[in-house]
Amino acid sequence: MLSDKNYISLEEIVGKEQVSASKEDLLCYSYDATNTTYLPDAVIFPANALEVSRIVELANLRGFSIIARGAGSGFTGGSLAVSGGVVLSTERMKRVIKIDEENLTATVEPGVITWEFQQDVEALGLFYPPDPTSKKISTIGGNIAECAGGPRAVKYGVTRDYVLGLEVVLPTGEIIKTGTSTMKGVVGYDLTRLMVGSEGTLGIVTGATLRLIPKPESVVTMLAFFPGISEAAAAVADIVAARIMPSTLELIDSFSIKCIEEYDPVRFAGVGALLIVEVDGRPESVKIEAELVNGVCKAAGATNIETATDKRAVKNLWKARRSISPALFKLKPNKINEDVVVPRSKIIELMTGLESIGKERGLIIACFGHAGDGNIHMNIMYDRNDDAEAARASEAVKEAFELTLSLGGTISGEHGVGTTKAEYLEMEIGSVEVALMRRLKECFDPKGIMNPGKIFSNKSAVRVT
Amino acid sequence: MLSDKNYISLEEIVGKEQVSASKEDLLCYSYDATNTTYLPDAVIFPANALEVSRIVELANLRGFSIIARGAGSGFTGGSLAVSGGVVLSTERMKRVIKIDEENLTATVEPGVITWEFQQDVEALGLFYPPDPTSKKISTIGGNIAECAGGPRAVKYGVTRDYVLGLEVVLPTGEIIKTGTSTMKGVVGYDLTRLMVGSEGTLGIVTGATLRLIPKPESVVTMLAFFPGISEAAAAVADIVAARIMPSTLELIDSFSIKCIEEYDPVRFAGVGALLIVEVDGRPESVKIEAELVNGVCKAAGATNIETATDKRAVKNLWKARRSISPALFKLKPNKINEDVVVPRSKIIELMTGLESIGKERGLIIACFGHAGDGNIHMNIMYDRNDDAEAARASEAVKEAFELTLSLGGTISGEHGVGTTKAEYLEMEIGSVEVALMRRLKECFDPKGIMNPGKIFSNKSAVRVT
Repeated sequence: MLSDKNYISLEEIVGKEQVSASKEDLLCYSYDATNTTYLPDAVIFPANALEVSRIVELANLRGFSIIARGAGSGFTGGSLAVSGGVVLSTERMKRVIKIDEENLTATVEPGVITWEFQQDVEALGLFYPPDPTSKKISTIGGNIAECAGGPRAVKYGVTRDYVLGLEVVLPTGEIIKTGTSTMKGVVGYDLTRLMVGSEGTLGIVTGATLRLIPKPESVVTMLAFFPGISEAAAAVADIVAARIMPSTLELIDSFSIKCIEEYDPVRFAGVGALLIVEVDGRPESVKIEAELVNGVCKAAGATNIETATDKRAVKNLWKARRSISPALFKLKPNKINEDVVVPRSKIIELMTGLESIGKERGLIIACFGHAGDGNIHMNIMYDRNDDAEAARASEAVKEAFELTLSLGGTISGEHGVGTTKAEYLEMEIGSVEVALMRRLKECFDPKGIMNPGKIFSNKSAVRVT
Repeated sequence: MLSDKNYISLEEIVGKEQVSASKEDLLCYSYDATNTTYLPDAVIFPANALEVSRIVELANLRGFSIIARGAGSGFTGGSLAVSGGVVLSTERMKRVIKIDEENLTATVEPGVITWEFQQDVEALGLFYPPDPTSKKISTIGGNIAECAGGPRAVKYGVTRDYVLGLEVVLPTGEIIKTGTSTMKGVVGYDLTRLMVGSEGTLGIVTGATLRLIPKPESVVTMLAFFPGISEAAAAVADIVAARIMPSTLELIDSFSIKCIEEYDPVRFAGVGALLIVEVDGRPESVKIEAELVNGVCKAAGATNIETATDKRAVKNLWKARRSISPALFKLKPNKINEDVVVPRSKIIELMTGLESIGKERGLIIACFGHAGDGNIHMNIMYDRNDDAEAARASEAVKEAFELTLSLGGTISGEHGVGTTKAEYLEMEIGSVEVALMRRLKECFDPKGIMNPGKIFSNKSAVRVT
């Protein structure tokens, strides 16, 4: 619980209107995409880095927790107040401060919505590639905290690859600048990339300088229909073997297809797997690459390949892809969504392994995701009110992680660890490495006030609803 | 000085043949490209991570320093034993363990020569872009320690962007694994990128998993002749404004041209600046981009543009570019080479500013380098035996750094800080950030045994020759 004294001090920093402890407000900032809820003690809306600094300084002095929050669209609980404390929302810090066309950089505040920022830069012929599926609501600050990826990562990389420099409020309240606003820079330790993906546990990002690239002139989007997952996975391998680098290479399995079938049941009859393949670049090379992809997919067993010829067709196609995740709830009321990654060549082993794990336990495990970089979103569908099924789902997660790691993979490609994977951390990361990471956390945050209970297993976290 | 007891213990780890304290051997491992020399107490040649671990564990226990060394081609003293200690050469750890064509990754030991590795992967139609000018001798381990860049960084990024995971021996002797062998991975803190560019002060890289990409099918190399630096800088800006992303965009100033003029004096008569522009990709788009570059350069004032039409012509052109650095010694016996970076749009201000700084002090400051990402190599030529000139050169460095920082730049794009820039660190990095970096160093290396005297100013470093 936050004392009255602390609450009044927070009001003094941001003004009475910008901090709240009303039940209604707390509820609004209590959840994320994990579908779990933890009430914070208060929520605060600072306007700038200086206010963030003063809030954090106070928290450090008085010993209460601060949990930074963008849009709350995370899948691993990163923005949840799992042990109370003050949620610090960045929603008032949403200015695009500068888009520098000469230097292909942009300076933004953390609360900027990723998709809105992308629209701004694309209007200037520029491109900010990271495109998490949540991009229409998620923020740059949240993307940085989790090192968000997305379909385009296969060609363009993830958020980390586009962050040049940061302004960060440390857990002590000190404001630091990391990195540079130039393309290169190697002076001192790379605090920028240490912050990216640190899930709000080492500091709060209050500003970012991002790298932009020229917008690809031309994009061709193809939808390839396969009888089964093995043919689709073979096509993925063959595209890589043909030295083609698509800008998107998305795999959709049969469970996921079922969920989007209502769009057009006839169209998907007998289809066991889909690939969405996008190639981009200069029109001349795009044309050739699209033909190459077509040939490779057909040779691998595609029964049909549709090419989206106009913007509307592309939009519809992506709408269907994006609808999978919410539509899965038609299968079961609850979902465990894990974003495992395996080496590209192991996708088929992962998918067939997951199918077995599901079958053994009478669970549906729907898989789709970024096959181009081996990042598969597996969705274990279950009913939380059915204790036995919930227990089987939990066992399936563990076994799926064991399978992933045995194939040389990682248990998270772009969602982070947060709370949901904290107990599995040491399945992947050795004890020496975890000890080192804990020492780093202590080095930044000796009092442990910043986003406690995340990444590292913390049994004190208590789910309240 | 290393005690006999410690020397014998080192022999026990690697065998008598793989450690030496003979004057001849020590001399061979006493220098780097800074043209300064510091004798280590011993040099040791471990064969694998386990031996490195045992050596470092011993050093940590007994309190002597370990300085990791690749090829010793660094420009900032990173591999020099500035306060004695044991130089650990990675030259016996030079195996390319695996090139995984299916997953576009490679696993290598740190002593692999960058260029040799590039030849291996290119033979398979793959590409490892980082290309420091020293690539024919420098090692992957050294490149990782310094986060090396090179001409291709403008399009492809630097070493950091191609390191997926590392095996590292910590200053305690513990062996850790960082990162993943997959394209994505966000589990725990990003120790991988924290190690990259840490200049051997946080650990010794004993293995690396690198990301590869498909080799561009086609490359066109152009040499554009300009009357002066302002026209060439305008062409750089105009290429960026035209949303072209060349794979190389190198600027060569008039002093540097003088040094390569012997190749063909007539050809360079009246030429005030050169640009080397390379575009790569599919042949169809390369052709179009080359035409665009041609048009932009001509419009910006290029008096002539040569296109290298065969491999030999390209090789000759790059040979001339690479000869600049050594050929500068024709102007003066000593050189201070600094790799400053400014935002692309500030290149002309940097170059004219450096010209003024040189003129005021009667010094030649020759500039060339990676204009595409604003990374200019400025070479202050002087005679070390002329005390007054040496003092003026030293003043010029400081003023050049001040100019660079006033333009929003950084004092090192790819060489690192090492010893040569340590005293300037706080010109760029604030005291809070430096204090944080020092805490990180202590967190990794509480006894300060690993590459002491680097990055952070350390007055105890004594140059012995």
